[in-house]
Amino acid sequence: MSDTKSKFLEVYSTLKSELLHDPAFEFTDESRKWVERMLDYNVPGGKLNRGLSVIDSYKLLKEGKELTDDEIFLASALGWCIEWLQAYFLVLDDIMDKSVTRRGQPCWFRQPKIGMIAVNDGLILRNHIPRVLKKHFGGKPYYVDLLDLFNEVEFQTASGQMIDLITTHEGEKDLSKYSLPLHHRIVQYKTAYYSFYLPVACALLMTGENLDNHIEVKSILIEMGTYFQVQDDYLDCFGDPEVIGKVGTDIEDFKCSWLVVKALERASEEQKRLLHENYGNADPACVAKVKELYMALDLQGVFAEYERTSYENIIKRIEAHPSKAVQDVLKSFLKKIYKREK
Amino acid sequence: MSDTKSKFLEVYSTLKSELLHDPAFEFTDESRKWVERMLDYNVPGGKLNRGLSVIDSYKLLKEGKELTDDEIFLASALGWCIEWLQAYFLVLDDIMDKSVTRRGQPCWFRQPKIGMIAVNDGLILRNHIPRVLKKHFGGKPYYVDLLDLFNEVEFQTASGQMIDLITTHEGEKDLSKYSLPLHHRIVQYKTAYYSFYLPVACALLMTGENLDNHIEVKSILIEMGTYFQVQDDYLDCFGDPEVIGKVGTDIEDFKCSWLVVKALERASEEQKRLLHENYGNADPACVAKVKELYMALDLQGVFAEYERTSYENIIKRIEAHPSKAVQDVLKSFLKKIYKREK
Repeated sequence: MSDTKSKFLEVYSTLKSELLHDPAFEFTDESRKWVERMLDYNVPGGKLNRGLSVIDSYKLLKEGKELTDDEIFLASALGWCIEWLQAYFLVLDDIMDKSVTRRGQPCWFRQPKIGMIAVNDGLILRNHIPRVLKKHFGGKPYYVDLLDLFNEVEFQTASGQMIDLITTHEGEKDLSKYSLPLHHRIVQYKTAYYSFYLPVACALLMTGENLDNHIEVKSILIEMGTYFQVQDDYLDCFGDPEVIGKVGTDIEDFKCSWLVVKALERASEEQKRLLHENYGNADPACVAKVKELYMALDLQGVFAEYERTSYENIIKRIEAHPSKAVQDVLKSFLKKIYKREK
Repeated sequence: MSDTKSKFLEVYSTLKSELLHDPAFEFTDESRKWVERMLDYNVPGGKLNRGLSVIDSYKLLKEGKELTDDEIFLASALGWCIEWLQAYFLVLDDIMDKSVTRRGQPCWFRQPKIGMIAVNDGLILRNHIPRVLKKHFGGKPYYVDLLDLFNEVEFQTASGQMIDLITTHEGEKDLSKYSLPLHHRIVQYKTAYYSFYLPVACALLMTGENLDNHIEVKSILIEMGTYFQVQDDYLDCFGDPEVIGKVGTDIEDFKCSWLVVKALERASEEQKRLLHENYGNADPACVAKVKELYMALDLQGVFAEYERTSYENIIKRIEAHPSKAVQDVLKSFLKKIYKREK
């Protein structure tokens, strides 16, 4: 394990212990144990990319200057706030999607004796974020900006989730609702803001920057987040399950995936009919027909071309940015995702 | 309808319209309609006591000075934030409790085509609060205190809900877990903070007060909130269903009610056995046995005595407060609930 990651995990233990002794609430023994188990089950088990990227970004913004222990702790605490935010969304998304597993273990609400109490556990996770911010950033000049930032990004994520739920889950399956602008809107709000913009925005606030002066940085990061999600959609169908660690089910689940949107765009009337008939059906024969159509429409080639132009466009925008340090932050994000296979 | 109430309802329309055109999110037509319907269904249909009490409290704190239109709007907006907070908790509580009706209509998640999307709707309700605060209080000197206040109170409410869920719903029914201190803790955190302290704290912040100087006010309001919930528990069993507007089911639902706690305290071994055998069973014969035991233990008399001493103690604490205006605020709260029958 890298040094950064092991330090990051130490901060988790500290934050957890503080939350379990928060003076704003009188825990019973039982409830303290409950929260500890719930945190350990849901917060630290992911890849931690979002959290760690706050520290990486902050380091790059400090242009090689050695960080103090205090700065590392604070950047880590903000990183963990993003991981907490993610855990909150995942616990509740899994309930809404009736998912079975998450990060290689049963979803939290499927654990014995949890069930619908998981809804409130999701709220507890969410409520921990302002507790951490208050305790460690309450006296900082950028404290109110941090609160505003987390509030705005959470609002955007929940709103993106809403249009996803409404279009994918509400009423009868109707492929004609799916389009590239809708796909883009869902991805931008549901994923890109909290996964790409939020970590960098946290690092910028720590360096004393005003986020109003970084609209272009935000826009570039949203574009990268969109590109990341298109890759995700692509890998769900064409990735190697051994490498990505799961078997994709977007076709079965009637997801508004970039692939189906692109397919609809390129399909003949006959092919559209085939899609309408087979998309969203769990029967393996239906799934196979959809995949054959994707191949016939050369979606692999279309994706390769998308990846190339996307990358070029993002690089061009990054290099037009006046600050070398900000360029480095954005490039380090892009490097992590360009041509990824998992 | 009172003038205050009709003005208050006008502010709801304004806030709703602003939220439906929030520039932080690009609505689709469908999602804008969805949110509007969701808000109208869940936010304004209650008694609005919590929201209205912000305006009443603020008026009393201004000691008869005529409020400007702007002050009325702002106090109303804070009142609505509390109503939004309540709506968020109720939508999610109903899912967790598998409730059937709320405020005389089916619970939101039971509406056609809603189901588990209601979880995300709860989050949307919650996320609206900081949007309203940012838009209307973003420039005020007490803005950060408002954010801290709502964050702390929400954390306390979710934590109270957690101990309620763990003790009432988790695992097998075990009456021996129920005690007066546990009842007090659940009530204090789950109900009293947001229903009693939060409205007054909002009004105090609007007058420029520092909440750190009002620990005693907070403590008195928490005591009133506890008294209010004990009444609620009492009326659930002994109130007139025609007057309170619902048929109580605390006995059937194995609730940690003040009555069962008091009964356990006063019961003989034989009577305890009867409680253990019949509490939490929906069979009307079991419910009747529990009610008979409550009568035999004279819980009506015990309650009358509790109500009397509680009232005297609260009045004594209020009259010891140095500010006449604050006394008036607290007394107006107490007056609304003393010896209430609904």
